[in-house]
Amino acid sequence: MNRLLQDLRIVEFSAFVAAPLGGMTMAQCGAEVIRIDPIGGAIDHNRWPVSDSGASLYWAGLNKAKRSVALALDKPEGRELAQAIATAPGPGGGIVLTNLPPLTGLDYGSLKAKREDVILLRLIGNRDGSAAVDYTVNAASGFPLVTGNSGAGGGGLPVNHVLPAWDIAAGLYLATALLAAERHRARTGAGQEVVAALSDVMLATVGNLGYVGDVHVNGRARPAIGNDLYGSFGRDFATADGRRIIIIALTPRQWRAIGRATGLAEKLAMVGTIMEVDLETETGRYEARDAIAALLARWCAGRTLAEIRDAFSGTGVLWGPFQSFIELVRDDPRCSPQNPLFADVEQPGIGRYPMPGLPLDFTAAPREPTRPAPRLGEHTGQVLSEVLGLSAGEIARLHGAGIAAGPNLA
Amino acid sequence: MNRLLQDLRIVEFSAFVAAPLGGMTMAQCGAEVIRIDPIGGAIDHNRWPVSDSGASLYWAGLNKAKRSVALALDKPEGRELAQAIATAPGPGGGIVLTNLPPLTGLDYGSLKAKREDVILLRLIGNRDGSAAVDYTVNAASGFPLVTGNSGAGGGGLPVNHVLPAWDIAAGLYLATALLAAERHRARTGAGQEVVAALSDVMLATVGNLGYVGDVHVNGRARPAIGNDLYGSFGRDFATADGRRIIIIALTPRQWRAIGRATGLAEKLAMVGTIMEVDLETETGRYEARDAIAALLARWCAGRTLAEIRDAFSGTGVLWGPFQSFIELVRDDPRCSPQNPLFADVEQPGIGRYPMPGLPLDFTAAPREPTRPAPRLGEHTGQVLSEVLGLSAGEIARLHGAGIAAGPNLA
Repeated sequence: MNRLLQDLRIVEFSAFVAAPLGGMTMAQCGAEVIRIDPIGGAIDHNRWPVSDSGASLYWAGLNKAKRSVALALDKPEGRELAQAIATAPGPGGGIVLTNLPPLTGLDYGSLKAKREDVILLRLIGNRDGSAAVDYTVNAASGFPLVTGNSGAGGGGLPVNHVLPAWDIAAGLYLATALLAAERHRARTGAGQEVVAALSDVMLATVGNLGYVGDVHVNGRARPAIGNDLYGSFGRDFATADGRRIIIIALTPRQWRAIGRATGLAEKLAMVGTIMEVDLETETGRYEARDAIAALLARWCAGRTLAEIRDAFSGTGVLWGPFQSFIELVRDDPRCSPQNPLFADVEQPGIGRYPMPGLPLDFTAAPREPTRPAPRLGEHTGQVLSEVLGLSAGEIARLHGAGIAAGPNLA
Repeated sequence: MNRLLQDLRIVEFSAFVAAPLGGMTMAQCGAEVIRIDPIGGAIDHNRWPVSDSGASLYWAGLNKAKRSVALALDKPEGRELAQAIATAPGPGGGIVLTNLPPLTGLDYGSLKAKREDVILLRLIGNRDGSAAVDYTVNAASGFPLVTGNSGAGGGGLPVNHVLPAWDIAAGLYLATALLAAERHRARTGAGQEVVAALSDVMLATVGNLGYVGDVHVNGRARPAIGNDLYGSFGRDFATADGRRIIIIALTPRQWRAIGRATGLAEKLAMVGTIMEVDLETETGRYEARDAIAALLARWCAGRTLAEIRDAFSGTGVLWGPFQSFIELVRDDPRCSPQNPLFADVEQPGIGRYPMPGLPLDFTAAPREPTRPAPRLGEHTGQVLSEVLGLSAGEIARLHGAGIAAGPNLA
C-alpha cells in the first residue's frame, strides 16, 4: 500500500486473476477500488486453495485493499446501482475494469450515456469474442510442448505451467492501460474503451521473445531441453542431501565465477578444448553444456545444499536452490515479515498470516500497512451511502428487498 | 503503436526481458524510448533465438519502436553523454528505466543532481542487492516442484517454466510504476526513485495466489497434478490423430456444455452418483476428475482434432488444442496478419516477418503501424543532435574518438 493514486476511484467487475490483479495493483497504490460482485459472490469466490472452513486464500490474495459491494446483478435495480457507482461523478471516478462479459447497462455505450468521460478497460478471451482462459491460451502458445522433457524423451506430452502467467501479464497490462487512459483523460477530458484479448497477450509475448520470428525466418522452433537454459549454460543438479539447485552462466563473469568457486576452472577450460568451442561465448557454453554439466553434477553430488551455499557465497556464481512452497515459506527469509514486502495481516474469515504488499517501492510514497481483502459485501452500505448518497432508510430497503447485501448475507 | 504517450521521453539502460519489455510497452504507447547500449551492444544483443546470420530475433522482439544510441559507457565521456540524455530538460523527459547495476553517474543521486525531478525506475534481483534472475527466482518459487509430473510419479524432479514469466511480470509492473510516478510528478513536481526486486515480484505473486497462506493457514501445499486443473476439472487428452487438447470446466455452464457436446451427459451424471459428489461444484468435479477423464479420454481418442473442433463448435465447451510454436505460426490465424495485432515488418538485419504490436486496443488512440526494433546505434547521431543539441562536427568527433557509434560501427 501507498497513497500514490489516492484520488482515483476504480470499479471492478471481475473474477479469477487478471482483472482482480490489475485492480489490486491500483488499490495497493492507494486508489479506491470497489469490486462489485453478485450477492453470494462471483465464480471465483471459493477458488482453491481454501482454508479448512472453505474460505478462499486465493480470493483473499487477489482482492486485498479493495472495498467489496454485493448487489443483485441479476435484477435491473441491482444493475442500475452498479452502473450508478461506476459512473458516479468526481474527477478520479468513472473508471471501470472488467474481465467478465458485460451485463446489461454495464457495456461501454450504457456507461458512456451516464458519464461521457468514462474509461472502460475490458479483458476478453479472443479478439472475436469467443472464450479463452489461461489454460487454453497456454495450450495454444507453444510453450507446453517445450517445457520439461516434453520433447523426444517425454514422448511429446505437453506440460502446462501452473503459474497463471498469461492472466498475470494481462492483469498488469490492464493496470498500465488504466493509467495511460486516465492520463489521456486528465489531459483531454476524453474517456475511452480499452480492450485486450488474453490470446493477444499470449501472442504478443510469443512474438516479443522471438519465437514467431524463429519459425518465419528460420523455419524452426526451439526444442524441449528440460531445465537447460536455451542458448547459454544453465541446468539443475542434485545435491548430496537430496535437494536440487540451478546454476546459470549467462555472462562471461558468471561463467568464470563457477570455475573459481568450484575449483574446476582448469577442467572446465579443457572442456572447451575437447569440445572445440569458446566457453566465453553463450553459444559455446550451450554447445558444450552436457560436458560442463558432467563436471558440475559430480561436484554438486558430493556436497550438501549448505556446503554449496557456503562455497558459492560471495563468489558471483548465479545459482539457487529449488524450493517447494513449504520450503519457500518455512526456510526462505525473503518470504516472511523479515522482508518489508510481507506483513502479518488478519484476514477476516481466515486468520492471521503474512501477506505480501506491492512489489514496488516508491520513495515518494512510502509503503503503508498491508490491508486484507474485504469480506464479501463488507462495504455495500458504506459505498451506497458515500458514493451514491443513499439514505440509511433506502439502504435498509435495498437490503430487505434482496437488491443489496452486507457481509452477513453476502 | 499508438500516440497516447507521445509527450514522454524515457531513457532505458537494460538487457534481456524485464526493463526492455517495460520500455517497449511505453514505446508502443507512443512514448519516445531511447535505449542506450554500450558500443557493440549489451549482453542480450545476441540472445537466442537468432537468425542464421546471428541476428537476435529476441532482441528485435523486445526493443521494437525504440531509438537506439550506442555510447562508450566504459569511458567517463560516454557516461556523461548518457547522463545528459537521461536528464535532458522538457516536461516529459527525465524518466529512466533500468534493470542493470547503475554505472557511475547514472545512479539516482547523480541523476537527481542534474535534474531535480528525475524519475528512476530500477529493477534489482533481490532486495538486499544480490543477484537473481528469472531462472533462480523461479527455482525458489515453489512452482517447478508442482509443474508437470514432478510429484510422486516424476520423482520430485523440478520442471522450470520456459516462458520467462517473472521477467514479464516485472517488466509490466515497471510500466505501471512508471506511469504512476509520472502522474505523481505531473501533479506535484516531484520525481522519485522506484525500486522493484525480481524476487519480490515472485514472492508477491505466490502470496497473491494463496500459496503462502496455504502453508501458514493449512500447513500444506498443493501437489503436482500434471496438467490437471487444481480444484475443478481440467485435463489434457489425446485425439485419434495424435494431437492433444485441453478441456476445462470451471463453471457449471462449461461443465454442462461438455455433457451436451459429447453426448455423455447421462454417463457423466452417473459418475457423480458412483463417486458420491455433486458435479455442479468445482470441488465435486475435482474429486471425480479421474472418472470424468476416463469417459472423456475414450471420446477424444475416437475422434480427430478436426472432428472434435466440429463437435465443440458453438457449444460453449471451453477447450483448445496444444500447438507447437510451428503449429501456432503456421495453422493459427490469430498468429498472423489476419489478426490486427500482427503486421509484416521489415526488421533491419533480419528481414520481413509478422511482428506483434501492443496487445491493447485504445479506442481514443488508434493502432498505428508496428515499428521494428532499431539497428544498434541507429539513432546515436540523431539523439545527440536533437536531445543534446550537439553540432555535426562535435558528433563526428565523438564517433572518431570511439565515444559514440552509429549503426555501422555499433
